[in-house]
Amino acid sequence: MRTVDIIHSKRDGKELSSEEIAFLVEGYTKGEIPDYQMSAWAMAVYFNGMSARETADLTLAMARSGDQVDLSSIHGIKVDKHSTGGVGDTTTLIVGPLVAAAGIPVAKMSGRGLGHTGGTIDKLEAIPGFAVERTTEQFLAQVREIGLAVVGQTGNLTPADKKLYGLRDVTATVESIPLIASSIMSKKIASGADAIVLDVKTGRGAFMKSLDDSIKLAQAMVDIGTEVGRETVAVITNMDEPLGPSIGNSLEVLEAIDTLGGRGPAELTEICLELAAHMVRLGGKADGEAEAKELVTRLLDNGEALAKLKQFIAAQGGDAYVAEDPARLPQAAHRVDVPAPEEGYVAAIDAEALGITAMLLGAGRATKEDKIDLAVGIKLFKRVGDPVKKGEPLAELYINREDSAETAEMMQRTAAAFKIASAPAEKLKLIYAVITKDGIRKL
Amino acid sequence: MRTVDIIHSKRDGKELSSEEIAFLVEGYTKGEIPDYQMSAWAMAVYFNGMSARETADLTLAMARSGDQVDLSSIHGIKVDKHSTGGVGDTTTLIVGPLVAAAGIPVAKMSGRGLGHTGGTIDKLEAIPGFAVERTTEQFLAQVREIGLAVVGQTGNLTPADKKLYGLRDVTATVESIPLIASSIMSKKIASGADAIVLDVKTGRGAFMKSLDDSIKLAQAMVDIGTEVGRETVAVITNMDEPLGPSIGNSLEVLEAIDTLGGRGPAELTEICLELAAHMVRLGGKADGEAEAKELVTRLLDNGEALAKLKQFIAAQGGDAYVAEDPARLPQAAHRVDVPAPEEGYVAAIDAEALGITAMLLGAGRATKEDKIDLAVGIKLFKRVGDPVKKGEPLAELYINREDSAETAEMMQRTAAAFKIASAPAEKLKLIYAVITKDGIRKL
Repeated sequence: MRTVDIIHSKRDGKELSSEEIAFLVEGYTKGEIPDYQMSAWAMAVYFNGMSARETADLTLAMARSGDQVDLSSIHGIKVDKHSTGGVGDTTTLIVGPLVAAAGIPVAKMSGRGLGHTGGTIDKLEAIPGFAVERTTEQFLAQVREIGLAVVGQTGNLTPADKKLYGLRDVTATVESIPLIASSIMSKKIASGADAIVLDVKTGRGAFMKSLDDSIKLAQAMVDIGTEVGRETVAVITNMDEPLGPSIGNSLEVLEAIDTLGGRGPAELTEICLELAAHMVRLGGKADGEAEAKELVTRLLDNGEALAKLKQFIAAQGGDAYVAEDPARLPQAAHRVDVPAPEEGYVAAIDAEALGITAMLLGAGRATKEDKIDLAVGIKLFKRVGDPVKKGEPLAELYINREDSAETAEMMQRTAAAFKIASAPAEKLKLIYAVITKDGIRKL
Repeated sequence: MRTVDIIHSKRDGKELSSEEIAFLVEGYTKGEIPDYQMSAWAMAVYFNGMSARETADLTLAMARSGDQVDLSSIHGIKVDKHSTGGVGDTTTLIVGPLVAAAGIPVAKMSGRGLGHTGGTIDKLEAIPGFAVERTTEQFLAQVREIGLAVVGQTGNLTPADKKLYGLRDVTATVESIPLIASSIMSKKIASGADAIVLDVKTGRGAFMKSLDDSIKLAQAMVDIGTEVGRETVAVITNMDEPLGPSIGNSLEVLEAIDTLGGRGPAELTEICLELAAHMVRLGGKADGEAEAKELVTRLLDNGEALAKLKQFIAAQGGDAYVAEDPARLPQAAHRVDVPAPEEGYVAAIDAEALGITAMLLGAGRATKEDKIDLAVGIKLFKRVGDPVKKGEPLAELYINREDSAETAEMMQRTAAAFKIASAPAEKLKLIYAVITKDGIRKL
């Protein structure tokens, strides 16, 4: 087998065999196939795509390229959740305890990542004492005991994906549906998931800006799940405006506590219940979506989900009293209101611009070396469709640095992210579609 | 400027600016842009092509990436000739002296190359004493004195092209018309040509197998010439069967001598007169193609072209008497006839198969390190359309190795390259089209 012939086949629109794909991934991981051949192949894939079978083969080959987490000692169907990422996306902190309360074992390894705010691991570190580093044995034991653990990723998971993603990033081959889908799914499979629920964000604050592309990506991932025998459901959700009002690590932990306590923002609550219901159904704890939704709603209402959060925090050495006393979370030194420059209705909120502003405030990392300020962020007071009066606060900045020029710039950026119109604007749709192995259901 | 953005633009079908193309070529030549970005870009070009302007910019950027031959000390319009390569292609050895006899200065730097037989430089070395290594000053002086010099390529000509070609070869990005066209034209321009005549071969013994692709390639090169102010004419010629009957270095030199003496094969003579006529017209030595054709035909008939060959051989230290006494050329130890296995008409001759057989006999190089046997090769006795009797020789092998098993295999390969049918077959067309800056003329 010669790499150049494999590139040639893909370039000419042919379907690669399972052996050819395994040859590519193994050779590339070992360094036997050079970057310049892999990037040419990736560009050919960008243009010619891959069949569902090829995409599944690539996913499995990448999942097997390094360590694989063995969750077989944990009883039950392990259902993982993944979000394609957005602004103010606190769902993991809410959905994890919620489904664990329903008896679904949640064994999550999470990354820190770059972006507007920290990853789930960073957010958890806002809780005093919370330890994200655990040995594999401690991690598995905790899941067996209380049904929920979230730890930092260790070991050498999907090195092929890591290497290929780095290469795609500098060769303009990121935006390929089968390559994105296999990258995400390979990590979930290597992490030991039996079933997977995907929150595919769409809109201007998301990686996928168009609904059409988001549906294609979701469908590709559901297809991979079906091909490799890990049932997968994808929920396509709106990220034109931030999901929850809080953008920032401490702020999002607080929002998760509020939501689990039944006092969360309506939109965030709705999405979390939707995602949790799919997980509960896939995990075999409910017959059908309606029963699953009822179950998770009850667990939220009766306090069991919040109790699970506290149990989880305590199990990982954290201060569970943050649930009663939010002042125990890191606090920003200053809060500054961002007033509306005019009267009218919020017609649009640029989620991405707010995400970047939060990052500039210190809530996220631009490079791996950046240190996150867990206390800072933005809290939004208005959503699309809301009326505003001139001077009324649109949002509040949580800041630590005393730099009036910077503060003025951040206020200006935040205000600019709100588009205010004189005519009333409609509320945005929250969930566009649900894709299961049986097809797509548009909402 | 960022390389990834340039790849992105090309991937999305945008036209790159002259600055972007220069940035790519310069960065790649200096090693600042890595292979993996260049190969992804090349694959994007494979899919999205390049405009005439982009292709011309790429050509000039590659031509300027290394040394450039300065022919300004030679009086007159320097017209270069290039063949895209085929089997039994002796045209340079004939056309060079022919147009030099017409007063067109021919200053040719030529490579050895890989392939079925040696390059022009290898063929010339079949002439005893002929020296292909000359200083630039000697080279220029010889052209000023006798109007013709052919030497081995020295210096660092078009390093960007060399590097990019090597990369394309292993990343399945060879078959891109703008990349092929710019590669060829960059070398001609760096070699100092004022005008260029291209012999674009088409058919099964050629790099371009289809007439359609050959026309596209020819058009792309003529367009580059027009864009950069070097008038270019492309003649599209048949390479479904070998051009001349001789395949092998000594054999081709002898064929060139015969042709310049007016005793050459009709087809080879016709193509050489056609190419020479275009060169003479571009070089300003004739008004129009008819007058040019008359002039070169006269120079062939009156012996001036042959005299120029002898003068040229002598000037480079070679034995000019080979023109009178071909036995002075390297001779193979054995000749073996290849008989026709059946009676009928020659319906097809697989030029590529014969080229490979000649290479296996030792006439060409498979790798750079291989040593060429100048004496060996194949002489064909039949062309497509000719009738044959059973047992009549189709061809004759010139061999040096005494290995009866190998000889039997080579005889078998040669016979298999001839397709003999019971019904009469038509002679193949020799010239399909001529492309000039004014358009295409199909013949």
